Amino acid sequence: MARKNDVTKVLLDESEIPRQWYNIVADMPNKPAPNYSPMTGKLATLEEMEVIFPREIILQEGTTDRWVDIPQDVREMYRQWRPTPLYRARSLEKALGTPARIYYKYEGTNATGSHKLNTSLPQAYYNKAAGIKRLATETGAGQWGSALSLACNRFDLECTVYMVKVSYQQKPYRRSFMNTFGANVVASPSNLTNCGKSILEKDPDCTGSLGIAISEAVEDAATHSDTNYALGSVLNHVCLHQTIIGLEAKKQMEMIDEYPDVIFACCGGGSNFAGITFPFLMDKFKGSKVRAVAVEPTACPTLTKGVFAYDYGDTAKVAPITKMYTLGHDFVPAGIHAGGLRYHGDSPIVSQLYHDGIIEAQAYGQKAVFDAAVLFARTEGIVPAPESSHAIRAAIDEALKAKESGEEKAILFCLSGHGYFDFTAYDNYFSGKLEDLEYSEEAVKASINNLPKIGE
Amino acid sequence: MARKNDVTKVLLDESEIPRQWYNIVADMPNKPAPNYSPMTGKLATLEEMEVIFPREIILQEGTTDRWVDIPQDVREMYRQWRPTPLYRARSLEKALGTPARIYYKYEGTNATGSHKLNTSLPQAYYNKAAGIKRLATETGAGQWGSALSLACNRFDLECTVYMVKVSYQQKPYRRSFMNTFGANVVASPSNLTNCGKSILEKDPDCTGSLGIAISEAVEDAATHSDTNYALGSVLNHVCLHQTIIGLEAKKQMEMIDEYPDVIFACCGGGSNFAGITFPFLMDKFKGSKVRAVAVEPTACPTLTKGVFAYDYGDTAKVAPITKMYTLGHDFVPAGIHAGGLRYHGDSPIVSQLYHDGIIEAQAYGQKAVFDAAVLFARTEGIVPAPESSHAIRAAIDEALKAKESGEEKAILFCLSGHGYFDFTAYDNYFSGKLEDLEYSEEAVKASINNLPKIGE
Repeated sequence: MARKNDVTKVLLDESEIPRQWYNIVADMPNKPAPNYSPMTGKLATLEEMEVIFPREIILQEGTTDRWVDIPQDVREMYRQWRPTPLYRARSLEKALGTPARIYYKYEGTNATGSHKLNTSLPQAYYNKAAGIKRLATETGAGQWGSALSLACNRFDLECTVYMVKVSYQQKPYRRSFMNTFGANVVASPSNLTNCGKSILEKDPDCTGSLGIAISEAVEDAATHSDTNYALGSVLNHVCLHQTIIGLEAKKQMEMIDEYPDVIFACCGGGSNFAGITFPFLMDKFKGSKVRAVAVEPTACPTLTKGVFAYDYGDTAKVAPITKMYTLGHDFVPAGIHAGGLRYHGDSPIVSQLYHDGIIEAQAYGQKAVFDAAVLFARTEGIVPAPESSHAIRAAIDEALKAKESGEEKAILFCLSGHGYFDFTAYDNYFSGKLEDLEYSEEAVKASINNLPKIGE
Repeated sequence: MARKNDVTKVLLDESEIPRQWYNIVADMPNKPAPNYSPMTGKLATLEEMEVIFPREIILQEGTTDRWVDIPQDVREMYRQWRPTPLYRARSLEKALGTPARIYYKYEGTNATGSHKLNTSLPQAYYNKAAGIKRLATETGAGQWGSALSLACNRFDLECTVYMVKVSYQQKPYRRSFMNTFGANVVASPSNLTNCGKSILEKDPDCTGSLGIAISEAVEDAATHSDTNYALGSVLNHVCLHQTIIGLEAKKQMEMIDEYPDVIFACCGGGSNFAGITFPFLMDKFKGSKVRAVAVEPTACPTLTKGVFAYDYGDTAKVAPITKMYTLGHDFVPAGIHAGGLRYHGDSPIVSQLYHDGIIEAQAYGQKAVFDAAVLFARTEGIVPAPESSHAIRAAIDEALKAKESGEEKAILFCLSGHGYFDFTAYDNYFSGKLEDLEYSEEAVKASINNLPKIGE
């Protein structure tokens, strides 16, 4: 291993892949609120959940055990790309002239190019073990659909991906990727579901939305006994699976005798933020002063501008009702390029932590984000995903603050994915067509008026 | 480090990045023949070469020293992604049911997605050190242009990339990639050069070719004193730089007490083949029985069907005349998806080694190649470049032979790049549109008739 001050990347041997995920719920002073059923308006029952999820996933969703074993078969598959590298951004530091030491954990080294594979593999595993033959899911930008396609292929499950029609048409490469792994990719709205049919009857040219695609995938799962549904973020079990990111990063920081003063991660549904920060928050509950900052777009500022309340997880009101920071399920964020951050709500765990002042949040417009993305690409030689670039922006600003104050702090961020499928966004940036697309306060107010009345 | 039989990937610490490249010319029983000038038809002089290359590169082109120091600045930049991982293809082995152990060195982990960055960085470095302000080059599929763009950005050089017009139009993402790193990407033929202008006058709709793009880049370099030319394969110094691949792979194999019985690499201009095999051939000159097999497309079977003779390096007859296996500079291979293997000639060193029986060669049609690519993607979770998939095909066939004979041999191949910019090809494969596109014997015969008369 290179000397502490001289390291570019910290590599862990595959024998050091964690054997357990960390469940932060065990340590939270206030636990996340329980989920409600969209059908009954009452607490969601195991039976209701079992229509679309395998029992093992439902148990993980509710467990308060601090550690959850990673199945051996999943750990074997993790070995194909995990542990992921921890980099020190030496070239970026030099360009900024900062005394801060900037580290990033890079989750884009697997075939699907993002952290999503960390949870799609265990989800496919538990469904396979439960005798399920097929998984249905939705995808917008395509990262989650890609990750689930690969996972289903590895566990010999069929996979149906309802892809928002506008993405299906605009991102043929993402579709081809899923086809390569044998998935059936359907443009949503489709004629395969009642929900899709009724929408197409009213509007044959409908280009779809994530809300519609979720409805189709859930309906597909609920109406086929051999089929389940899989979700790529938000829920507790997804955050749990992603903690492997932070657990590895902690080991890697220790190897070079480092510990972060502050951690940044972009935050849409919250799973990559959860992944990198929760294992460090474990220390915070014991007295560590580490700061964890969720970075979101100003176009969809869920934590920084939303309310903490029960809301539907999707626009079509079929997913569980969860207590979270939300802009309201009717809120439709502007079409920023960070598609993975365009979610009206947030993970119930992340929301509770924010509500309790344990974590912080910041929001950026996409111009500032792409400035950071291009500087990062040119110095560090990795083209970042627009989502991940929110964390880069915040890390750069923290490093510039350290430059002013002369502080030698250690900054860590999660580079959750690469941007090799996002060059349309970079083209827009370079041609000056990129706009900041702020959220509308009025739209949020109107949307928040439509929250369900739960627990009142 | 995991046990020998249980390893998935072998990682080297960055402190173990080689400090010298290996120059196989020192050990070759017959040295590669010297280059001739396309202008004079005589041996190329240092002065002629200096119009487009820096002196240090020209000296490397002719050196017989066994080891050449890697400049410290280049080694620093290598650290951003090197050493690259060596993987054991355990899932692929399982799918094949072979007793063979299959290893692959993966060169797609850097931003540009291929091994090309190994040589673009030192080439930019030597040009910068020589006071050059700008580099000009050509690119077809875009991998080399991407690698040179990034390298120029890191060494603060301007970069002009003449991109074959049909690729410029069909591969906007590759163009965006180069823009992200600040390169000026020009559709070729262009109005920036006399060569381009004269072609456009005759045919305003000309979609370009690699031969034309080379001519434009060389003319640009030759007519601007602050500008040099850079080439991404074929020449001796390029092969030299790529030996870092094999030097690392040797160390990694040693770490798990392994040594390959046979090595496969795809072969277009020859640099990735050179990179992975030359450090092992060093042992072969001392008695090792390791086999090195160059794998090429049946659409452009330079080694397996060409002649060993002096020929122009490009269709426009401006590049040095080299002695190599060639199908003739007039030969236009069919439009297979492995664009990087559509070169009529081959590295003079690789050619000499093949002529002397030190290495072997095989050719495959692209259907068989994509069969292998998809099997590899589904088992190993990396979507391979069409070029690299030639090596995969050959490795799989060797593993299947081992299954028949029951041999427990060790197979190594170079996965020179990923295929995330090649989904058009995969789409064609899945939709049954992919054809094998064999070469035409008559076209080769005709083309070989036009070889220059050198040294006769």
